[in-house]
Amino acid sequence: MTATLNIGFLLFDDITQLDFTGPLQVLSRVPGAKVHLVARTLDPVRTDCGPFILPDTTIAACPDLDLICIPGGFGVDAAMQDDEIVDFVRRQGAQARYVTSVCTGAFILGAAGLLAGRQATTHWRYHALLTAFGAEPVKARVVRDGNLFTGGGVTAGIDFAFTVVVELAGETVAQAIQLGLEYDPHPPVDCGSPDKACLHVRGAVEQRFAPRMEAFEGLLREMRAAETV
Amino acid sequence: MTATLNIGFLLFDDITQLDFTGPLQVLSRVPGAKVHLVARTLDPVRTDCGPFILPDTTIAACPDLDLICIPGGFGVDAAMQDDEIVDFVRRQGAQARYVTSVCTGAFILGAAGLLAGRQATTHWRYHALLTAFGAEPVKARVVRDGNLFTGGGVTAGIDFAFTVVVELAGETVAQAIQLGLEYDPHPPVDCGSPDKACLHVRGAVEQRFAPRMEAFEGLLREMRAAETV
Repeated sequence: MTATLNIGFLLFDDITQLDFTGPLQVLSRVPGAKVHLVARTLDPVRTDCGPFILPDTTIAACPDLDLICIPGGFGVDAAMQDDEIVDFVRRQGAQARYVTSVCTGAFILGAAGLLAGRQATTHWRYHALLTAFGAEPVKARVVRDGNLFTGGGVTAGIDFAFTVVVELAGETVAQAIQLGLEYDPHPPVDCGSPDKACLHVRGAVEQRFAPRMEAFEGLLREMRAAETV
Repeated sequence: MTATLNIGFLLFDDITQLDFTGPLQVLSRVPGAKVHLVARTLDPVRTDCGPFILPDTTIAACPDLDLICIPGGFGVDAAMQDDEIVDFVRRQGAQARYVTSVCTGAFILGAAGLLAGRQATTHWRYHALLTAFGAEPVKARVVRDGNLFTGGGVTAGIDFAFTVVVELAGETVAQAIQLGLEYDPHPPVDCGSPDKACLHVRGAVEQRFAPRMEAFEGLLREMRAAETV
């Protein structure tokens, strides 16, 4: 008999939906996995690209998790300032076997004090800012430091999830899930990292991120001034 | 000014959530895109791995779509037998600029008569069955035949979506979306297609699919007997 493995994803408004749904699809197929979609309330959570997703438990009702996963998105700014969310992440992070994030979800782990002195990654545009929480940014698609697994931006969550499956259940199980999900990627364009992008494309993307970056950097300064970081 | 591009995803119970959410994340970032999540009713739709997703429009209320995308999942069997769904797909498919599917969603296009004489793909395990609808199965991750774009299993939906973005908006836009989503995949295991899988892993996955395959092949025989195929 396979023991139950409680895997919890934190949901919050303006989450990047693929940060969450990529790992969800992979991790939900691990033998024994019981997935919990945790939010402050059971109200539908708004994602960045339209749909609303229904949480199935609340922060108050969530059982102790074996693995906690924090997705990212523009809603991270608000979540980092939400004591109830940060306390939940700190409490679960202290007892979980695995503490994980995808994309800018890493900053919520940071706000909960779970990145201090640890190697980690996040979305490439935000990478250097991990030092605000005492983390050592590592340029890799998936970074492991002890029981801490962090993934890069958005789609890196799928590679992150397979890395976690290998750890949780072994390589053969990971291969079987990979085959079932036909994960043999062949992107028709080849511009998925800043090193591969031409200056024009990178400039356009950085320009689109600029207002968000400025707000986010301001928030980190404020949090540092308030000595919460 | 960018013209509105109405992109509709068909939702139904027991959808494979990543079949839908991968392309959604990519296509929602196309300039001018307005995404519609279409189901029979506005009730939450159950996905294969836990969460419920809220549709935002109904089959009756959905506007004419420029692009219709049909995801797959074990709920395809029921959807193929649902006249209201099949009529909707047939009607939209007749007027849309682009008719598309991911994974076993192709069979819903087939039930609507949209695959006859066309090249197409689907999840590798179901690939040969496309002939039941008069399609010519092509072993590729993404297949284009005129205005018909079909993707392989689950994660192929992401490569499918980038292929569609190149068509809709050009390579530079696709590259910018790819960089924003950091889509530079590096799977930590390499077993994502049946050709790459060892016999043991492939056998285990085929065994897990077996009851579903049997039911599905039975359904195709029944539909043929009833001359609906």
